Amino acid sequence: MAKIRPLGDRVVVRPDSKEETTRSGIIIPDTAKEKPQQGAVIAVGNGRLLDNGGRSVMELHEGDRVLFAKYGGTEIILDDEIYLVLRENDVLAILD
Amino acid sequence: MAKIRPLGDRVVVRPDSKEETTRSGIIIPDTAKEKPQQGAVIAVGNGRLLDNGGRSVMELHEGDRVLFAKYGGTEIILDDEIYLVLRENDVLAILD
Amino acid sequence: MAKIRPLGDRVVVRPDSKEETTRSGIIIPDTAKEKPQQGAVIAVGNGRLLDNGGRSVMELHEGDRVLFAKYGGTEIILDDEIYLVLRENDVLAILD
Amino acid sequence: MAKIRPLGDRVVVRPDSKEETTRSGIIIPDTAKEKPQQGAVIAVGNGRLLDNGGRSVMELHEGDRVLFAKYGGTEIILDDEIYLVLRENDVLAILD
Amino acid sequence: MAKIRPLGDRVVVRPDSKEETTRSGIIIPDTAKEKPQQGAVIAVGNGRLLDNGGRSVMELHEGDRVLFAKYGGTEIILDDEIYLVLRENDVLAILD
Amino acid sequence: MAKIRPLGDRVVVRPDSKEETTRSGIIIPDTAKEKPQQGAVIAVGNGRLLDNGGRSVMELHEGDRVLFAKYGGTEIILDDEIYLVLRENDVLAILD
Amino acid sequence: MAKIRPLGDRVVVRPDSKEETTRSGIIIPDTAKEKPQQGAVIAVGNGRLLDNGGRSVMELHEGDRVLFAKYGGTEIILDDEIYLVLRENDVLAILD
Repeated sequence: MAKIRPLGDRVVVRPDSKEETTRSGIIIPDTAKEKPQQGAVIAVGNGRLLDNGGRSVMELHEGDRVLFAKYGGTEIILDDEIYLVLRENDVLAILD
Repeated sequence: MAKIRPLGDRVVVRPDSKEETTRSGIIIPDTAKEKPQQGAVIAVGNGRLLDNGGRSVMELHEGDRVLFAKYGGTEIILDDEIYLVLRENDVLAILD
Repeated sequence: MAKIRPLGDRVVVRPDSKEETTRSGIIIPDTAKEKPQQGAVIAVGNGRLLDNGGRSVMELHEGDRVLFAKYGGTEIILDDEIYLVLRENDVLAILD
Repeated sequence: MAKIRPLGDRVVVRPDSKEETTRSGIIIPDTAKEKPQQGAVIAVGNGRLLDNGGRSVMELHEGDRVLFAKYGGTEIILDDEIYLVLRENDVLAILD
Repeated sequence: MAKIRPLGDRVVVRPDSKEETTRSGIIIPDTAKEKPQQGAVIAVGNGRLLDNGGRSVMELHEGDRVLFAKYGGTEIILDDEIYLVLRENDVLAILD
Repeated sequence: MAKIRPLGDRVVVRPDSKEETTRSGIIIPDTAKEKPQQGAVIAVGNGRLLDNGGRSVMELHEGDRVLFAKYGGTEIILDDEIYLVLRENDVLAILD
Repeated sequence: MAKIRPLGDRVVVRPDSKEETTRSGIIIPDTAKEKPQQGAVIAVGNGRLLDNGGRSVMELHEGDRVLFAKYGGTEIILDDEIYLVLRENDVLAILD
């Protein structure tokens, strides 16, 4: 399988199937303005470039289950599965 | 119950029911341009990423009763209750 | 009475009644584009979050009589009185 | 007379009467896009909040005669005279 | 062959042919809002100018195979081949 | 003659007459989108306020002949001559 | 010949004639959204003003052959030749 390393503060997320989402106990109401999705983080970038030239420490790690805003992410298909490349800032929360 | 850890300067808030809101003694006039809501903070993020790579100290803590602008938050349903994920900056004040 | 602690560089202001405003000697002409109001500061936040993670020292203190731009503030009713939650930046001047 | 202390990098200016303006020797052509006005600074704020939490040193002082852009200022009437509250950045120049 | 040295945080990328893209195992669904492309980095700039006057360390290196957003890049033809000049920020990920 | 001291990074420029402009050897084509003008710097401000509270060192000095974008400047008439108050950033180049 | 010293991070570029452009081996396709041009740098500014009051080190030097975005530059005619005054940020690459 091709490996993918996101740049900057980007992460690669595999969105949950509907079944997995239901099992998590979190429901996004149909009336919500912006419907976040759930998924699993499979790759994490080196962090956002800081003004001093360093990189931010990412809050996310491989394997984290997350709630994320679909808006702003880019869909790709890798080995027949859909993934999203998005910025850490578009991830709302980690689900434990 | 699934646990939820908000990222960055986000917090998770459980909005008050109408009865709880009335008991607080604060009323938002119908003529107000932007109607803030009341609720309880149930989870707090690690703080906003600073230019130097550190994190801001959050002003909010779990259990704080708050007045917040609904605008900008994201609604989720967890174990049959509605919650909002929003940024500390969208919280106007703590109610003691 | 419920206590309210504004977050960040916000303050809570009790707008003057028309009688109090007239007594101050300051009049806002009807032709003014943006009509500022007068009032008393009743609560002051911890200051604006700075890039270095610290907080700005607020220029305003409880009890200050101020001239403020209504625009941008949020109206609330507490124990039958109207208050405004607004940012220090929306306060034009202190009236001595 | 009520005293007024502008906040941040604001100043209070008393606009010249037409007679005073003419005496200064400066004329704003009718064809000018943005017509600056002349006046006298009667109060000066503590300076703009800097990223490091300090305050900028104001270039203006009480008594300075100035050329300023009316745009952005707020008109108030104090003891029957018109004043403007505006930011130092809206003052173009000091007239010696 | 003329050599090209991109300025700042820009890189020069040679987009894959359709055959090369297919071999990588990554597919961009037709339904994707923003269709990223694949290619090879052939030149890398000195880095983004930082506030302190230094330059950021580029995450990309010559020879990296990348997934990039076409949007924002500038097409040029050099010795009968198409290249794109784009900013590192428009590169989503490195493909290993 | 009234003296004028521009604030911040502003300068006061006396635009060339048509005759002076022609003598300089620089012509602005009629087809140019934005037509810069030529003139002489007669007063220079203290510099732009920096984030650390200091002032930038101005690149311009009294007496410099300059090429400037008219856009953004403010016209004033002083002792029957037209002057422009503009920001150093609106000056494109010094003509030696 | 009049000398011209660009301010800040500006450079003065003499655009190539069509013949010179063809010789370089770089072609801009007719289908390109934004058509960059080629030319030679004839003057370089002191660098962009940094937040700390210093100046950035320019990447460009007199004599560099460059690929630049015409957009944003200002055309001037000097001794019967056309030149462009533009910011270093509008220069895409150096051609060796």
